[in-house]
Amino acid sequence: MKLVYEGKTKNVYELEDGNFLLQFKDDVTGEDGVFDPGANTVGLTIEGAGQTGLRLTKYFFELLQEKGIPTHYVSANVQENTMIVKPAKQFGKGLEVICRYRAVGSFYRRYGAYAEEGQPLDGFVEVTLKDDERQDPPISEDALVMLGILTNEEYKQLTGLAEKIGRIVKDALSEKGIELYDIKFEFGKVGENGDITLIDEISGGNMRAYKNGRYIEPLELGRLLLNGE
Amino acid sequence: MKLVYEGKTKNVYELEDGNFLLQFKDDVTGEDGVFDPGANTVGLTIEGAGQTGLRLTKYFFELLQEKGIPTHYVSANVQENTMIVKPAKQFGKGLEVICRYRAVGSFYRRYGAYAEEGQPLDGFVEVTLKDDERQDPPISEDALVMLGILTNEEYKQLTGLAEKIGRIVKDALSEKGIELYDIKFEFGKVGENGDITLIDEISGGNMRAYKNGRYIEPLELGRLLLNGE
Repeated sequence: MKLVYEGKTKNVYELEDGNFLLQFKDDVTGEDGVFDPGANTVGLTIEGAGQTGLRLTKYFFELLQEKGIPTHYVSANVQENTMIVKPAKQFGKGLEVICRYRAVGSFYRRYGAYAEEGQPLDGFVEVTLKDDERQDPPISEDALVMLGILTNEEYKQLTGLAEKIGRIVKDALSEKGIELYDIKFEFGKVGENGDITLIDEISGGNMRAYKNGRYIEPLELGRLLLNGE
Repeated sequence: MKLVYEGKTKNVYELEDGNFLLQFKDDVTGEDGVFDPGANTVGLTIEGAGQTGLRLTKYFFELLQEKGIPTHYVSANVQENTMIVKPAKQFGKGLEVICRYRAVGSFYRRYGAYAEEGQPLDGFVEVTLKDDERQDPPISEDALVMLGILTNEEYKQLTGLAEKIGRIVKDALSEKGIELYDIKFEFGKVGENGDITLIDEISGGNMRAYKNGRYIEPLELGRLLLNGE
């Protein structure tokens, strides 16, 4: 088992059968000790964050599997904080696809002249480049195609999938009285045909979730959502 | 004649017949005394910049008129640094439409992970919000439509016009051995039918132009282009 990538919140190992093993860490993104799912730096370490992230990812990826949504998920070992996934090829140097239900975060920072803070956005989808150095710049379909990062057809599939998955996650949270404000996904090409597939994770670290107007921290999200599972 | 708007590089007066008079100033955008067409602040005052800007605008707007491109231009008085224009309604709080032929400026700052500095871009069109406070954020067609700033049909017209006008300006510069790297336009709705129309100005202050690899300052652009006119 060979360490191939050391990420901000996960390490990635290559397995002998060609699959990969993700080791979830207790580090979460944020700044100055405050958790922020939109941040590019590790802001703090929360004991149990890795396990909760993995349990939530397992929960959502199995839910998506039931609904016929392709993911890279193979299996999870909650005791060891590890998840086995299929190999995937990323788009360019990596994209983030964001589904927005409320105008908060970078969307509000950019377009605050035209939106009230927190106004409903009805699943608006945006793509940003994964590029810490350039603060994950937003990028349009035209620019993605022009720079050879993906095709128009792939853009359509990617954003369509993101909308669908966002809706499933939103509904699952809603059943527990939690409101999803926004969520970010990563996609890759998996298998011989390069099928566009959800990769990475779905956990409190990827989303902003609120209950009765109060922000739900990643660990609390695990407790609220996985209670009794 | 009533002053209705004091801009960074122009003042705007309302005339009694319903048209507007633009007074070109010698202030140009930039930072710390260095001219930068992409900047949001007045960086310096260059004697003659207003008149050169007006003469170039007159030159380009009359060229566009000949080619059947709609502009808000009515007439210009070069001695008084003024131009009379038709009234126009802007999109939202104002948009900038940028045509790019080389990867420089904010495009390169955002997408430098995927583009070499200065690589050809073949007239790539982008839209940004005019919003000094938020550093003129780029915005996608989807976001423009979602925020009610324009319709998909208007976006298509706007970007199509920008490409066409960019090409005409590029060709005019090319005849004098000058290469256009990028140019920004503003559009508004003019007349009873709200026809999408080029507004504002076309001058050295809106573009990056190079000759033999050397950047051409706005005043020099006037001399090179209007020589003998």
